[in-house]
Amino acid sequence: MTKQFHLNAFLMGVGHHEAAWRHPRTDARRVLDVTHFQELGRIAERGKLDSVFFADGLAVGPRIKHNSQAIFEPVTLLSAIAVVTERVGLIATASTSYGDPYHLARKFASLDHISGGRAGWNIVTSAGADEAANFGLDGIPQHRGRYERAEEFVDVALALWDSWEDGAVVLDRESGVFADPVRVHPVDHVGERFRVRGPLNSPRSEQGRPLLVQAGSSESGKEFAARHAEAVFTAQRSLDQGQEFYRDLKARVVRHGRHPDELKVLPGIVPFIADTEEEAKALEQSFTDLISPEYSLRQLSTLLGVDLTEHALDAPLPPLPPLEQIEGHKSRYQLVRDLAESESLTVRELIARLGGGRGHRTFAGTPEQIADELQVWFEQGAADGFNIMPPYLPGGLEDFVDRVVPILQQRGLFRTDYAETTLRGHYGLAEPGNRFAADGGRHAGRDVSA
Amino acid sequence: MTKQFHLNAFLMGVGHHEAAWRHPRTDARRVLDVTHFQELGRIAERGKLDSVFFADGLAVGPRIKHNSQAIFEPVTLLSAIAVVTERVGLIATASTSYGDPYHLARKFASLDHISGGRAGWNIVTSAGADEAANFGLDGIPQHRGRYERAEEFVDVALALWDSWEDGAVVLDRESGVFADPVRVHPVDHVGERFRVRGPLNSPRSEQGRPLLVQAGSSESGKEFAARHAEAVFTAQRSLDQGQEFYRDLKARVVRHGRHPDELKVLPGIVPFIADTEEEAKALEQSFTDLISPEYSLRQLSTLLGVDLTEHALDAPLPPLPPLEQIEGHKSRYQLVRDLAESESLTVRELIARLGGGRGHRTFAGTPEQIADELQVWFEQGAADGFNIMPPYLPGGLEDFVDRVVPILQQRGLFRTDYAETTLRGHYGLAEPGNRFAADGGRHAGRDVSA
Repeated sequence: MTKQFHLNAFLMGVGHHEAAWRHPRTDARRVLDVTHFQELGRIAERGKLDSVFFADGLAVGPRIKHNSQAIFEPVTLLSAIAVVTERVGLIATASTSYGDPYHLARKFASLDHISGGRAGWNIVTSAGADEAANFGLDGIPQHRGRYERAEEFVDVALALWDSWEDGAVVLDRESGVFADPVRVHPVDHVGERFRVRGPLNSPRSEQGRPLLVQAGSSESGKEFAARHAEAVFTAQRSLDQGQEFYRDLKARVVRHGRHPDELKVLPGIVPFIADTEEEAKALEQSFTDLISPEYSLRQLSTLLGVDLTEHALDAPLPPLPPLEQIEGHKSRYQLVRDLAESESLTVRELIARLGGGRGHRTFAGTPEQIADELQVWFEQGAADGFNIMPPYLPGGLEDFVDRVVPILQQRGLFRTDYAETTLRGHYGLAEPGNRFAADGGRHAGRDVSA
Repeated sequence: MTKQFHLNAFLMGVGHHEAAWRHPRTDARRVLDVTHFQELGRIAERGKLDSVFFADGLAVGPRIKHNSQAIFEPVTLLSAIAVVTERVGLIATASTSYGDPYHLARKFASLDHISGGRAGWNIVTSAGADEAANFGLDGIPQHRGRYERAEEFVDVALALWDSWEDGAVVLDRESGVFADPVRVHPVDHVGERFRVRGPLNSPRSEQGRPLLVQAGSSESGKEFAARHAEAVFTAQRSLDQGQEFYRDLKARVVRHGRHPDELKVLPGIVPFIADTEEEAKALEQSFTDLISPEYSLRQLSTLLGVDLTEHALDAPLPPLPPLEQIEGHKSRYQLVRDLAESESLTVRELIARLGGGRGHRTFAGTPEQIADELQVWFEQGAADGFNIMPPYLPGGLEDFVDRVVPILQQRGLFRTDYAETTLRGHYGLAEPGNRFAADGGRHAGRDVSA
């Protein structure tokens, strides 16, 4: 069988384009409607996608005037989606910078049980000052400190998910043994930031533990991903940049003693799909025309660390602070600065380019052209799959599933049906071992059949 | 119309009786099956019950050998129930002693949106040493400190739920205004334990904010309830004790400047239901016969603060520590001690009495007898409604809904259909005001039509 790739649907309100909610192809009221998101989950499952995914943030700022920000908490929302789907994976973002590892491990374990082993955790370190202020901090916690905390946080969560061995729930009515205490372990974590005794108050899930996903592409982010992540979402503007990122990240994975297939690289793409290329470009333009400069300038100001809200739209960017001074999203800062500089964009042009996917690659074309593009990136070593970011929802996801996926399936690039039941299974990852099991959980093993 | 009472179904695994999972009337595997809990939600809704409720704990200890402890996180679980029900309220326990008010306010807001205004929060302060050890603490936090933290925690959550006024989500496509920033407010909380700027990243829900529920009956617990709670679950062994508790709590509510109807008192009852009283008592006995003394002694030891695991079953309790020394569940300690002393029970007898509902009132009888019992408590001033704790599930809930509820309806004591759509509506509570609204949110008002 040809090697096949993986597809994740990155869901956001009524679409990724910042003006999606103003466009006639959407119904903005559905950002508050759980059935909208359940429908999106079902559409993704109809397309046999590996997973759906929600980003998240822990604050709303002044941008709320012009755009929706997270309204539902992703794990509660995915729980509602889990019970109307059977196979599609369910990935939620949660931060390691605020909150407790026990609470987090527990809520993801709960989603993993509710979904029969389909939960994934997109690990973020929360770069925003607005978020810090909701958790008692002044200013953004430093980039380095955030990643140190993330390391320990993930260590604790992994230990907690190992704290029940497979088969620990015995349910022996006769002897009255509900669970075998020998197979339920304290974790006894004592670290710099956390002390957690364990065990978790949840048995091991059908897939062992949630899939670990990561999306930071800074130096610390890549090292973190190489150690822990099983899937990585990334914004790459061109094939050669995508290839470079892919090679670099896989080499890091190997340096950390892992098999390169244990981490899947999924660049983002915002597809505008139509019958002809011309129509697709016109569709994209119809969204660009609805962009609110006030909103975009605020967003860009936050990202770049300079106040652009009074800046002339038809001038180039002003001088920007050096990368070292950025304590927020370092890699996204770099990407946006490079984009503006390499193509000498005015602020207005830059805003239009970022409107679709905040720096992710936007592609307008026919279903065949989009399939070609994905195939090239996959076959030329820039991707193990893709993070599909529909500019408007549900229509943009329906078009991808109903018009692009069949082409990929005909070409043998994508599954025609699910072969596995768990998220980990879809991504070709073995059930993880268990540090507490006498056999290291080796009945499941670490060997990846990719 | 006759005054009617309220009914909450307190759901727990496959039943409240500690041996429920060993009894032929249950299927123990369903403690891990989300569809079991969805079915329970639907049964409660068939009976027009006000709400369903899950307790919670943040640890598993050695007791796991003999009984299930919380497996699903309640809010994720209720989210899965929300989407297969339309009316029944959904109350989850969450602790104020661990975690962040922003995270908590946000997840309950999410459940409130997912369910269309049916979420409730049972506020607990986590008395267990096992729980403390999962959040970096040595030993149980002191009773008093827990309640001080709970006060501030609830203040912050309430402020966050007020941070979006009704109607703040504008969705004006033409002007590009998603939300009106004038109606979205920071909360700027700066307190002893928390600093939270806000606003919450979630609009106001259909019922304003989640219903506040409380279940602690210690002095601090009652004062806390009188200030904040809108429903109180309580364990009362006899009618006169129930009346005394009811009078006391309502008087406290009035002292805090609230209308007595703004807080509903719901004593717990564990009903064993059968065609004859004799059969009901035999049914109860068949559960008692399955009790594991090892499990019960561990549980009792934790509750009473003395090691009983080697204590003779047919002897009375050993001397117990004074109430002042108890840092855990003070009111439950008192109830169990009084029960044992007033009836001169041996440890074996005490265990049998506690097996059904851990100190809540157990009642075995015909549907008519149970209806009579509830009517007496209601009409004689001991209850605004009841917390129904089926000893086994789903059968015990089905019997209550299909055999007891119709009798209550015939007597005019309970609704024959839902008149409202929100949890707050079911309990006859008005939508709460909003501290940030120019009119104090008074279009909704505080006037209770009970």
